[in-house]
Amino acid sequence: MPDQSDDAHYEIALASRMLANEGALDAFGHVSLRHPADPARFLLPRSRSPQLIEPDDVLEFTLDAEPVRGEAVRLFAERVIHGCIYQARPDVMAVCHHHAPEILPFCIAGVPIIPVFHLGAAGGETVPFWNQRDEFGDTNLLVLKPEEGHSLARALGQHAAVLMRHHGATVVGGDLRELVSRSIFMCQNAVYQLQAQLLGKVMALTPGETRLAGSINAMPNVVGRTWEYWSCRLAERGRMPPRRRAGKTKSPSMARSAASGRAGKRARS
Amino acid sequence: MPDQSDDAHYEIALASRMLANEGALDAFGHVSLRHPADPARFLLPRSRSPQLIEPDDVLEFTLDAEPVRGEAVRLFAERVIHGCIYQARPDVMAVCHHHAPEILPFCIAGVPIIPVFHLGAAGGETVPFWNQRDEFGDTNLLVLKPEEGHSLARALGQHAAVLMRHHGATVVGGDLRELVSRSIFMCQNAVYQLQAQLLGKVMALTPGETRLAGSINAMPNVVGRTWEYWSCRLAERGRMPPRRRAGKTKSPSMARSAASGRAGKRARS
Amino acid sequence: MPDQSDDAHYEIALASRMLANEGALDAFGHVSLRHPADPARFLLPRSRSPQLIEPDDVLEFTLDAEPVRGEAVRLFAERVIHGCIYQARPDVMAVCHHHAPEILPFCIAGVPIIPVFHLGAAGGETVPFWNQRDEFGDTNLLVLKPEEGHSLARALGQHAAVLMRHHGATVVGGDLRELVSRSIFMCQNAVYQLQAQLLGKVMALTPGETRLAGSINAMPNVVGRTWEYWSCRLAERGRMPPRRRAGKTKSPSMARSAASGRAGKRARS
Amino acid sequence: MPDQSDDAHYEIALASRMLANEGALDAFGHVSLRHPADPARFLLPRSRSPQLIEPDDVLEFTLDAEPVRGEAVRLFAERVIHGCIYQARPDVMAVCHHHAPEILPFCIAGVPIIPVFHLGAAGGETVPFWNQRDEFGDTNLLVLKPEEGHSLARALGQHAAVLMRHHGATVVGGDLRELVSRSIFMCQNAVYQLQAQLLGKVMALTPGETRLAGSINAMPNVVGRTWEYWSCRLAERGRMPPRRRAGKTKSPSMARSAASGRAGKRARS
Repeated sequence: MPDQSDDAHYEIALASRMLANEGALDAFGHVSLRHPADPARFLLPRSRSPQLIEPDDVLEFTLDAEPVRGEAVRLFAERVIHGCIYQARPDVMAVCHHHAPEILPFCIAGVPIIPVFHLGAAGGETVPFWNQRDEFGDTNLLVLKPEEGHSLARALGQHAAVLMRHHGATVVGGDLRELVSRSIFMCQNAVYQLQAQLLGKVMALTPGETRLAGSINAMPNVVGRTWEYWSCRLAERGRMPPRRRAGKTKSPSMARSAASGRAGKRARS
Repeated sequence: MPDQSDDAHYEIALASRMLANEGALDAFGHVSLRHPADPARFLLPRSRSPQLIEPDDVLEFTLDAEPVRGEAVRLFAERVIHGCIYQARPDVMAVCHHHAPEILPFCIAGVPIIPVFHLGAAGGETVPFWNQRDEFGDTNLLVLKPEEGHSLARALGQHAAVLMRHHGATVVGGDLRELVSRSIFMCQNAVYQLQAQLLGKVMALTPGETRLAGSINAMPNVVGRTWEYWSCRLAERGRMPPRRRAGKTKSPSMARSAASGRAGKRARS
Repeated sequence: MPDQSDDAHYEIALASRMLANEGALDAFGHVSLRHPADPARFLLPRSRSPQLIEPDDVLEFTLDAEPVRGEAVRLFAERVIHGCIYQARPDVMAVCHHHAPEILPFCIAGVPIIPVFHLGAAGGETVPFWNQRDEFGDTNLLVLKPEEGHSLARALGQHAAVLMRHHGATVVGGDLRELVSRSIFMCQNAVYQLQAQLLGKVMALTPGETRLAGSINAMPNVVGRTWEYWSCRLAERGRMPPRRRAGKTKSPSMARSAASGRAGKRARS
Repeated sequence: MPDQSDDAHYEIALASRMLANEGALDAFGHVSLRHPADPARFLLPRSRSPQLIEPDDVLEFTLDAEPVRGEAVRLFAERVIHGCIYQARPDVMAVCHHHAPEILPFCIAGVPIIPVFHLGAAGGETVPFWNQRDEFGDTNLLVLKPEEGHSLARALGQHAAVLMRHHGATVVGGDLRELVSRSIFMCQNAVYQLQAQLLGKVMALTPGETRLAGSINAMPNVVGRTWEYWSCRLAERGRMPPRRRAGKTKSPSMARSAASGRAGKRARS
């Protein structure tokens, strides 16, 4: 019997696949959603490439990024990114961590992304930087420990996204659709900003324009259009997520996990 | 029974899909045609991504950008772009507004696009800039009000296209085929211009060359070839528009609209 | 009954489609072959996008670029390019004129293409420039008149290719396979050269290296491999040319033309 | 009857096709594996484009790059690259030589590739250069002679990869999966490094970060995810390798070769 959480599982799979199909995600990156019925939990897939996520891959976590059920599957090493942001930002309902190729040059050069076209205003007036090295010295650059996740959430502050030096970006949204469009438009903005800089001088939107244009994607005739477009592009390539299995309330992995106890703990790395 | 307007609906869907397939349009942008039987009206699809437009999505508007029939569908917010240009330019039969990625860096840096190869001459000797901020201050950068549309049409003047700062471009044509080829070749021209500037010094065509080469696309052995090529590329990806439904003279949405009165008004945003 | 010329028709269609599939040709450009049985004639398709050429589209021309039979089909406007080069260069068996996007920035900036990697040596030590404006003033930049074709052939000289300012390139080969690989590797060379210049200083191959590496593509284990690869990529996309129609010695268009007299003359432009 | 070597044949075909599908290999390049049962031999396909390699194409070589059986098929001219590295580096189990377009600009400009993002650390702190011209003067830039192979192996030293001036790169790995991910992530690193340099100043990872991040791809939840992702992308395009033919212990070419004596010798070039 489908419920609200079933829909959420499907929507997370859909958003993950859309972002992969549009090039923002590849073998890496992950999309989460705050649990629609319990703000103290979030939903995140098991460790798997975003383009391949199925609704049954989505698991439930506490805000400490611990799986609610012992899971006999591998988990994303960086799930504290999601938990720590949901703790710090009650307004955030969805989080995406990615290594989009359009963003990486900015993460490497340390050059700020600024809004340079109307849709790019979705990323806000400024996107702060977080350099893991500043606080934690030499690491493998993955965000693995709670203190690293909290540090990243502090750098994010009240912004729409944060750039992670030599690594990627983390983007937040009020819902999955805002998250998806913001992630995609920030990537386009980054490409245009780099090319405009090669051409001549980059001119940013004014703060007023950024504020006004930043809400274009909330217009009903815009959000409907983009969602239909990205869905059709997924469907055209045969990449739509499958539906959950009938009568399913737990994934097979959860069932297996119930049998095997805390096997999931051992599988994580 | 098909009439001239039925053909026009199909041609608009085809042109929209071609431009999307060649990368000039994405979730956004729109193509219109002056009504073939009534120069005081124009045809424009309902709010939908260009790659998905069907002949039945095409609606009729007055030059004030008001739908001729009350429509129970969402309309493009920026349809005044089309109406205002048709008012100002009796020679213009077709209009495309787009955010092509090749053009955006020029819209951001404020660097003019100039003709740098023979086919790029289709864009004319100069492409003027329009900066909404100059006249209207901080906006969301969409062209929503009639006075914004008229201002844009004045900036366009007698040119083939106008660049919109931080936003995109609007291109005009004497028919849909000229519009499509001009839009595509301007995008190619922009890419080559940027790369030539990175290599060294950009040399433009002379005014004489621009005038002479600007009419290459009117040569019968050129227009036939490009149209066949872009059509085949659409067909190869299964993206050709469907035909109108048999016996149809109004779209279902129009029929619904007739029942629901001015519902369309409320749907617009 | 198939003969040598039938094979040649098929090979021209195959080469045209390969070059289109690899991105060197789009709606424009054309590939010709000196007639295998008569060096005073050459084979060139009717005016059609290279990706769509069928063996039956290939026609026979004198070296003055006049069709041997009156043809009721549109012809390429620039066929003098081929005729004039076959007149000037008895060693040349195949010619390709193209507007490859990798080459255009060099044609615009006037920066010479030089061999920067082993396969790029296929283009030779230097690629001369031809600027139509120097000799003919303002034109539409198409090579339409015999004197323009002869001027281009003089600029080509004994080289493997010539760059045409603001227009494209013309490449020659000892056979179709050399022509195809040379065209493709010159495009790759151009991309790498531009990017290497952005990175730092471009270092060219020495003249000795260029001479030695320039013949790599004649190695039997290389030419077999590339031809299989480009063919498979065509086949994978369903783009292989059809075979000639059984029993066919003239194309239907030629038959039509025989009935309609010199209709072909009027169709040309 | 399948054995360990059968699996190895399949894995080499799979790795070759993955690297081609991800753009690191094209008509050129080759992947080898040290023989799983005999460290004094290695397995390498016959001369064929990597995307087309089948398990039955894989042959056995001594470390002198001589085929163990007389082969009636064409062999890669540059197989000494593999043999010489396996001789010099007992820790190396897999080798890939490629001309990836992302790498070539660095090979031309002589600019070192440095680790600029966490996954790019897979290439190590520095990637040495080898310039064939330094030791061998003018050549066709192919690595054909044993002394050229040994010189390249010396330049590689204890590094993960070596850049070959005006030619490409050679990458090594402890197994095929490390080889594939290292090759792909080095290409991404190169793109980001070039673009970051265009944006501003390139900041490299510290040596400590490089060492720590360099082992991310050995994490079980990472290697499983990337292998599934690249496999699915291959399968999606219908490019998975076929299985070996049943009961096969020698390829047909080998059987032919047994009949024709040392025909293979003559076929090589």
